[in-house]
Formats: sequence, structure tokens, C-alpha cells
Amino acid sequence: MPAVTVNHIAVVVENLDTALPFWQTALGLPLGKVEDVPAEQVKVAFLEAGESHVELVQPTTADSGIAKYLAKKGAGLHHLCFEVDDIEAALAAMQAQGVELINDTPKERGGRRYAFVHPKSTGGVLVELYDRRVQP
Amino acid sequence: MPAVTVNHIAVVVENLDTALPFWQTALGLPLGKVEDVPAEQVKVAFLEAGESHVELVQPTTADSGIAKYLAKKGAGLHHLCFEVDDIEAALAAMQAQGVELINDTPKERGGRRYAFVHPKSTGGVLVELYDRRVQP
Repeated sequence: MPAVTVNHIAVVVENLDTALPFWQTALGLPLGKVEDVPAEQVKVAFLEAGESHVELVQPTTADSGIAKYLAKKGAGLHHLCFEVDDIEAALAAMQAQGVELINDTPKERGGRRYAFVHPKSTGGVLVELYDRRVQP
Repeated sequence: MPAVTVNHIAVVVENLDTALPFWQTALGLPLGKVEDVPAEQVKVAFLEAGESHVELVQPTTADSGIAKYLAKKGAGLHHLCFEVDDIEAALAAMQAQGVELINDTPKERGGRRYAFVHPKSTGGVLVELYDRRVQP
């Protein structure tokens, strides 16, 4: 089976401008794109870390899912995303094991297919899967 | 500056035996060593994920730091460890930026030098640094 790799680690922050200096300057991770994602009511900064990256996510409204998470749990590690060769096969394997999925079938954003796994099946971690094949 | 990479993502679990099937079988991460670390009152399972790995950490006593974390915060993502070329240089750069360190100077375990950065300086994430150079 081809390797499953870590695509990104998502971190919820209150404010990108105050969070970035640690990750970019003190830790030295190269900053990639910074973008507004109005559909999800967040602003995201991507920092490169070898074959993975760190995504800092700041809510841009008070009532998004991320804003509510931040209000309830505070800033910090949010989810862990793995890249797989075939997301349908990965989801089928998980369902065969009784794993509870948040998305039974992949969603799609910008040509990237993804799905979330419920933390109750992972030991408390919100896990995201990415299909390695980017759609045309 | 050489790349900073993700060495591991640590996850606190209540029980390794019940947590492992998701990570190893359903997600398909190859299982490396599983070891007791009596000095830290934990049992740890290492799962390979490309150039990084996932460390599942189960407390083995009720009064360790990890056991208290589990009781207070519940199972889930615990810390994020980055590998750097020169840990002294990394810590000096962080101190110059006013970053609060848990370990001002590196600690050492099994030839591996490491230090923790306080979550208050990172935007809520407990960050660990590893020196890439393993000591003889």
C-alpha cells in the first residue's frame, strides 16, 4: 500500500497577524499563500514544513463553526489531514471497520476531494482525508 | 535556511489497544515500535506517516502530566514536534523574538535533544523542537 502522508495540521488562532510571527519568523516556516475563504467564514495562512504544512485558521465571523470552536475550546490544534491515494477506497475501508465518518462520500473544493472522520472513532482527533489526485 | 519538518504529532489516548485499530488498520499507517516509558509514566505507539509520524500516548499512572491532561481536556491532539538542524540556534532565535520557552536549554533523551515551547507564544499549540543531529 502506498504511503499515507500528513498533508497538513490545522491550528485555530484568534488572529493571524499576531500568530504568524511565531510560526514564520521564530520557527522559520516559509509562508505560502494567505487567503480569505468566505464560504467557510475563515482566513487561512499556509506555512510549509517539509512534505506537510501548517494551516493557521482565523474565523472571520462570530457564528461559523470555527468561531464556535474557538470560543468553546480556545486556540490550538484543530485537525490533522492525511493524504491518501484513493479516498473512496480509504472511506470504504474505514466503513468496513465501523469507523464513523462525518462525510460518507468525498466533498470537493478547488479540485481537491476530501472527507472528515469523526473524532469518536479516532481517539479524539478530528481527522481529514485528502485524495492525492487533484481533479482537473 | 534548511527546511524545518514535522517529526511527529502526539495524540493522547485513553487506551492504546482501542485506539490503534483506527490509525493502523483503518487509516493504514505502518506501526513502528510500541514502548513503555516508565520515566514519563506513559506507553507510546509510533505510526509512520511519510517523513513524519503519529505518536499515540497512553498514561500508565493516574498522576502523570499526561494523565492530568487527559482528565482535564480529554483525548485528542496533544503537541506538534518540529525537527530543526540546530536546536540551540532555534532556541536563541525564539528567545530573541520574545518567545516563551518551557525549556530554555535542550533536554536530552536517548541521544535526542529536545525542548518545548510554551503554547502562549504559539497561538495555543504546545510545540516541541527536536535537533536533527542524534547524539552518539
